[in-house]
Amino acid sequence: MDAPIGVFDSGVGGLTVVREIIRQLPNENIVYFGDTARVPYGGKSKDTILKYSSQIVRFLTSKNVKAIVVACNTVSALVLDEIQSEVDVPVIDVVRPGAKMAVEFTKNHHIGIIGTQATIKSGKYNSYIRTIDPSITVVSKACPLFVPLVEEGLIEDRVTDDIVGRYLQELKEYDIDALILGCTHYPLIRNAIGRYMGDGVKLVNPAYETAKSLKALLEEKGMRNQKEEASRYEYYVSDGKDKFVNFADRVLPLQVEHIEAINIENF
Amino acid sequence: MDAPIGVFDSGVGGLTVVREIIRQLPNENIVYFGDTARVPYGGKSKDTILKYSSQIVRFLTSKNVKAIVVACNTVSALVLDEIQSEVDVPVIDVVRPGAKMAVEFTKNHHIGIIGTQATIKSGKYNSYIRTIDPSITVVSKACPLFVPLVEEGLIEDRVTDDIVGRYLQELKEYDIDALILGCTHYPLIRNAIGRYMGDGVKLVNPAYETAKSLKALLEEKGMRNQKEEASRYEYYVSDGKDKFVNFADRVLPLQVEHIEAINIENF
Repeated sequence: MDAPIGVFDSGVGGLTVVREIIRQLPNENIVYFGDTARVPYGGKSKDTILKYSSQIVRFLTSKNVKAIVVACNTVSALVLDEIQSEVDVPVIDVVRPGAKMAVEFTKNHHIGIIGTQATIKSGKYNSYIRTIDPSITVVSKACPLFVPLVEEGLIEDRVTDDIVGRYLQELKEYDIDALILGCTHYPLIRNAIGRYMGDGVKLVNPAYETAKSLKALLEEKGMRNQKEEASRYEYYVSDGKDKFVNFADRVLPLQVEHIEAINIENF
Repeated sequence: MDAPIGVFDSGVGGLTVVREIIRQLPNENIVYFGDTARVPYGGKSKDTILKYSSQIVRFLTSKNVKAIVVACNTVSALVLDEIQSEVDVPVIDVVRPGAKMAVEFTKNHHIGIIGTQATIKSGKYNSYIRTIDPSITVVSKACPLFVPLVEEGLIEDRVTDDIVGRYLQELKEYDIDALILGCTHYPLIRNAIGRYMGDGVKLVNPAYETAKSLKALLEEKGMRNQKEEASRYEYYVSDGKDKFVNFADRVLPLQVEHIEAINIENF
């Protein structure tokens, strides 16, 4: 099946998931949508996040995607079931793979989770982890300043270190040995987070496991693309293209060739 | 005329303008719209800001407002003319009053402006100032982290002081004696900004002069509300009401009694 895989995010962060899909599934075509006009989702209500996600899913469906990857942690945590009920193709999220990965890593059964306010408030990571292993202790913390700090480019900076220390202090006190980076922007400041948490804490980036889940699913259902031609990557955004391309150039192994701004409210 | 005044902003920041209107025009009724679902506007493109503003103006028109106050600096700077061409009622912005006030204050003819990326990039403050007095030197700087820092509550904090110092260093070197706080969130960290800039720099909050312009306009056109009954204040948002009410309680002199979430995309 050479139909593309649909991937979406509230903005540019989901490109870290695209990068991992390209690496693990180089033969697959991808249609990406980033809601750059309405980003960020992390502080919005469930109703609004559902409305926006439904529009995006209708857009991806119009592109005849064979599967949908919800690259946004906030959407994955809040409205995954609703999205799956709206479409016939399989839907892969980032929260379940991230939870599974953390459970595999932890030895002392203390897992930390960081994410947006909406993701943390949803308690979704906690409930997936407890479903796999009820004996695990979970500590979670919303980190609303991480996204603006990354977007301002303060990757290696004393202010980022200062804020990292404040947000993660509690998690450190709980002696966790695995920390889920539950927002697609956070892997970009993994060095600052790692320095503060120390070598004893494994940083879990759900992108890797998400691409692995996608691959397993496509194989199981016989949906892998068997064609030999070069893969097609199409990117769509709801606001200006330039910012998106700048960010993509930092994250992706390939140049963005097809990019288009669309009116997502029409879907 | 007891028709209300329509006031809008990308989110909650415009309430600092509402506060000033209530103070200077206590007899007027107000309908406020805050686009809390799609906030922030400061990094978006002009096309998107125009689309969102047009929807809001259509909503306010449906409430039969007699004048519209654009409380958002970004909207004022980018699409004021387009908004005015869409409606028959007068439109008041925050940029022209802010520019006028700064020109009145400056003695050494060096004015600084801080705002969102979109506001600063528009050059609108600069061009208004130069129209009034071409001899004035203008230095401007975008401060994208100020809004997230305010929203995270870091009003008096070493991180805010650190970021203030970095953003404003250049402005200090230019020996300005007036600094326009060109974003409705910035007056909330005026102490940190004032400490860094020193007593010789007047901080200009456009909200005061905006309310004054509105008052002068209503008087000139004979549009003041002459009725004696208590004023009505109605608030509308595009996302969750709770966050809005929490912020409003910190800013407004009166409790929010009428608040409603609406689907702004329908306008």
